[in-house]
Amino acid sequence: MEDKEAMSKWKRKIHEVIFEADTPSGKAFDIGLLWAIILSVVAVMLESVKSIDAYYGAFLRNLEWVFTIIFTIEYIARIISTGKPLRYIFSFFGLIDLLSIVPTYMSFFISGTQSLLVIRTLRLLRVFRILKLARYIGEAQHLVRALKLSRPKIVVFLMSTASIVTIMGTIMYLIEGQENGFTSIPRSIYWAIVTLTTVGYGDISPQTVLGQTIASFIMIMGYGLIAVPTGIVTTELVKMDKSNLTTTACLQCSAEGHDNDAKYCKFCGAKL
Amino acid sequence: MEDKEAMSKWKRKIHEVIFEADTPSGKAFDIGLLWAIILSVVAVMLESVKSIDAYYGAFLRNLEWVFTIIFTIEYIARIISTGKPLRYIFSFFGLIDLLSIVPTYMSFFISGTQSLLVIRTLRLLRVFRILKLARYIGEAQHLVRALKLSRPKIVVFLMSTASIVTIMGTIMYLIEGQENGFTSIPRSIYWAIVTLTTVGYGDISPQTVLGQTIASFIMIMGYGLIAVPTGIVTTELVKMDKSNLTTTACLQCSAEGHDNDAKYCKFCGAKL
Amino acid sequence: MEDKEAMSKWKRKIHEVIFEADTPSGKAFDIGLLWAIILSVVAVMLESVKSIDAYYGAFLRNLEWVFTIIFTIEYIARIISTGKPLRYIFSFFGLIDLLSIVPTYMSFFISGTQSLLVIRTLRLLRVFRILKLARYIGEAQHLVRALKLSRPKIVVFLMSTASIVTIMGTIMYLIEGQENGFTSIPRSIYWAIVTLTTVGYGDISPQTVLGQTIASFIMIMGYGLIAVPTGIVTTELVKMDKSNLTTTACLQCSAEGHDNDAKYCKFCGAKL
Amino acid sequence: MEDKEAMSKWKRKIHEVIFEADTPSGKAFDIGLLWAIILSVVAVMLESVKSIDAYYGAFLRNLEWVFTIIFTIEYIARIISTGKPLRYIFSFFGLIDLLSIVPTYMSFFISGTQSLLVIRTLRLLRVFRILKLARYIGEAQHLVRALKLSRPKIVVFLMSTASIVTIMGTIMYLIEGQENGFTSIPRSIYWAIVTLTTVGYGDISPQTVLGQTIASFIMIMGYGLIAVPTGIVTTELVKMDKSNLTTTACLQCSAEGHDNDAKYCKFCGAKL
Repeated sequence: MEDKEAMSKWKRKIHEVIFEADTPSGKAFDIGLLWAIILSVVAVMLESVKSIDAYYGAFLRNLEWVFTIIFTIEYIARIISTGKPLRYIFSFFGLIDLLSIVPTYMSFFISGTQSLLVIRTLRLLRVFRILKLARYIGEAQHLVRALKLSRPKIVVFLMSTASIVTIMGTIMYLIEGQENGFTSIPRSIYWAIVTLTTVGYGDISPQTVLGQTIASFIMIMGYGLIAVPTGIVTTELVKMDKSNLTTTACLQCSAEGHDNDAKYCKFCGAKL
Repeated sequence: MEDKEAMSKWKRKIHEVIFEADTPSGKAFDIGLLWAIILSVVAVMLESVKSIDAYYGAFLRNLEWVFTIIFTIEYIARIISTGKPLRYIFSFFGLIDLLSIVPTYMSFFISGTQSLLVIRTLRLLRVFRILKLARYIGEAQHLVRALKLSRPKIVVFLMSTASIVTIMGTIMYLIEGQENGFTSIPRSIYWAIVTLTTVGYGDISPQTVLGQTIASFIMIMGYGLIAVPTGIVTTELVKMDKSNLTTTACLQCSAEGHDNDAKYCKFCGAKL
Repeated sequence: MEDKEAMSKWKRKIHEVIFEADTPSGKAFDIGLLWAIILSVVAVMLESVKSIDAYYGAFLRNLEWVFTIIFTIEYIARIISTGKPLRYIFSFFGLIDLLSIVPTYMSFFISGTQSLLVIRTLRLLRVFRILKLARYIGEAQHLVRALKLSRPKIVVFLMSTASIVTIMGTIMYLIEGQENGFTSIPRSIYWAIVTLTTVGYGDISPQTVLGQTIASFIMIMGYGLIAVPTGIVTTELVKMDKSNLTTTACLQCSAEGHDNDAKYCKFCGAKL
Repeated sequence: MEDKEAMSKWKRKIHEVIFEADTPSGKAFDIGLLWAIILSVVAVMLESVKSIDAYYGAFLRNLEWVFTIIFTIEYIARIISTGKPLRYIFSFFGLIDLLSIVPTYMSFFISGTQSLLVIRTLRLLRVFRILKLARYIGEAQHLVRALKLSRPKIVVFLMSTASIVTIMGTIMYLIEGQENGFTSIPRSIYWAIVTLTTVGYGDISPQTVLGQTIASFIMIMGYGLIAVPTGIVTTELVKMDKSNLTTTACLQCSAEGHDNDAKYCKFCGAKL
């Protein structure tokens, strides 16, 4: 009985440290974890640079193991301390937590020169760990909600854009042809996307007068089209800002438009 | 009599399947059509890739015929089942439906190596079929309405932009000259569009100090000018969101356009 | 006396045709002029293309003279028919009208191979004639007013941007140095503008790791900074849309927020 | 006693000239300083251009000394005339004022060929002097306030963008590999930033079909993502325009934040 109580008390403590950010220990844990994530991601990045890998490769691989063990302990602690372990495991962040430790362990079981490259691929997935960062900021929800509300309009916009680049890419494939780098329709569509989004690498660029004329139209279209997603998101954000007004009317003077925090009618002074 | 009734009942069924999206059969038809359109467009695209055409060219051309026959049956069904066939045929989507099947049939009548290329051109027009996609989403109308309302302002903006690129292109033609890639005024205008829209291929770029200075001004101008279409579309979208105008007309003077909170007609003072 | 009257009647007729766009003759004149402007600008452009100039050079130069004479007659007619000739001559469009005919006449007085090139320079200024187009659309004033109102904010924004590119250009000059294309501070500032405005030619691009890191910061800054002019113009446009509300209060119920076209209070029905 | 009074009078005069912009002498000083700053920055820039340095190097270095002495006198005058010298010295502009004169003096103490390059580095920091410009315009505060208010949202946005480019860069490193220019993860992340911000140098560009497909997604994402900072800043600017909140506090409960049209305190119901 006492054991159980001590156990559950211990669990509560872990839960407090890991899941809450308001207590001093919880805050310290969060900041420590943040740095561990950033450092481990930087280590993976540096390992990919040849000149650095040649000198510090062994050290970086050891560091990788240290971080993997830290994150494994954290992962197990999360499962133990939470009330609903399965819900955590199959949640978005539960899966990311798992994916960010598995690749290192998999390098044990799969060996050989050929497969080593595959391991590296999996290992690099650990970069997804950085996604954890977003969790620490509550402000993100406001933006996500605005984006969600404007999703149907954005889908329509993206589909229209997809249609435009498909047709424009095909037309350019016919006009410019193989000799000017527009070797196939998919490649021409790739060019149309590069142009419409105003990226403009310049690896493929129209050479004929007609091609340059049509390219000009695509550029101006892309330059104007950018107004659409911007307008959509802005409208949604403006709307959300305004939704702070209640719909309750004053009982005495029937006036509306009171703020959410209002307790008295601002026009006649009656209690709301 | 009975025959006619059966006929019209059969027509109604087709109409329901093809033109309506709410019934289960109508929805299934729409989804099937959507996939057929996407697959046929992908097939046309793949055919343009040399390495794929060498191995699967015959299969892709057969697939093209299968899709063409499916779309032909659909086209005929649409004409039969609709109440006003001529109106459908000459509507925007009626013409696109026709244009998306004709090119394949035309490959019969026009033969010979030289003309084969022309057939390919027509065949590629089938890509317009993808435009059908927009029809399936009602949300698009909101965006289209906002764009239509802001058309006069956008036309003014585009004409101003056209003036700017013409003058700037000419000035750069005089400054940079033939030796730096600005071989003619149209080409220099093309460069000005590439720069103003912030695409920046880099196939033509100013080499002289004066040219680079003017180019810098064009870039900053283009960077700021993008605010104008964005501002226009956003304002229109914000306005549409706010359009709390009722559709009720005044009983006395028949005037419309009253606010939602209006109790009396603002033109004649009669109670609404 | 009669002569004078006939004269002034004749003047009024010209004035009506040239300055007004509502009468049938005025409209016809405007459309005719529009086409003449476009054609003459196209002629100047085509003359700059070597291959076209070789075949049609003489024809294009004759066409240039025809348009110059037409525009000269128009210019004189404007001066005669307007009530305040001096005000027209020194107005923005009066000067543009003059500048669009002078270059052709100047080719008479200045001769010689060397100076011929200079004449060409002046001749190309005729492209400014295209600016006339803006005059025909009244909608432009709305946009211009919004831009004027937001001018102080835009000036501050441009000066901040100028400071950023100057400092960033200098830093990059020190980091990348001569061997990577950053040969001088002005050239590095040019690169910073190309990068900040997201144009990105690629004629100069950072090669060192530190340089690429700083370049990344400039890119993200430029990507975010674009929000500022957009926000400014949008706010101004939204504000202008709202300024349709009068500030007059109802005499009976003291309610405010009436539309400009309202004659009766929308809340109590009293005459405003 | 009199001496002290004369001294403080003299100090007030300097303070008026340097810190105020409304008096004629203060305005003249500000304009003079503005030109001195611009000219000295231009001089530093020109010195970096090899061809100019060869001819006018000595003159430019002398000019540099003249400006440094002028700015030194100004710096000392600022310290003397202000009431709280330490506060000025350690303020943002106090430090910039110091940094814009120190590099020239440091060229005395540090000599030798090797270290000369270091001196040049410090000397170029004088360009920071241009930042002074922002001080002269009060309008800037409005923009800065809007940016400050939207900072939490912008931080979230930048962190999300950082996550996206890290993951996308890693994926592209795996897909494209060393042979297509994606030599390391940091370099691939640099490419992802160049693409997402629609800069698009073209120094690194995807060559494989899969790489180009993912690049297309990044481009469209970047094209749409730009809506977020724009939406945030616009909303903040619109909100600030609307902030019709009075600064009057309720006499009864001392609550603030009442609307302009409020007649009664919305928290306690007392008459305002």
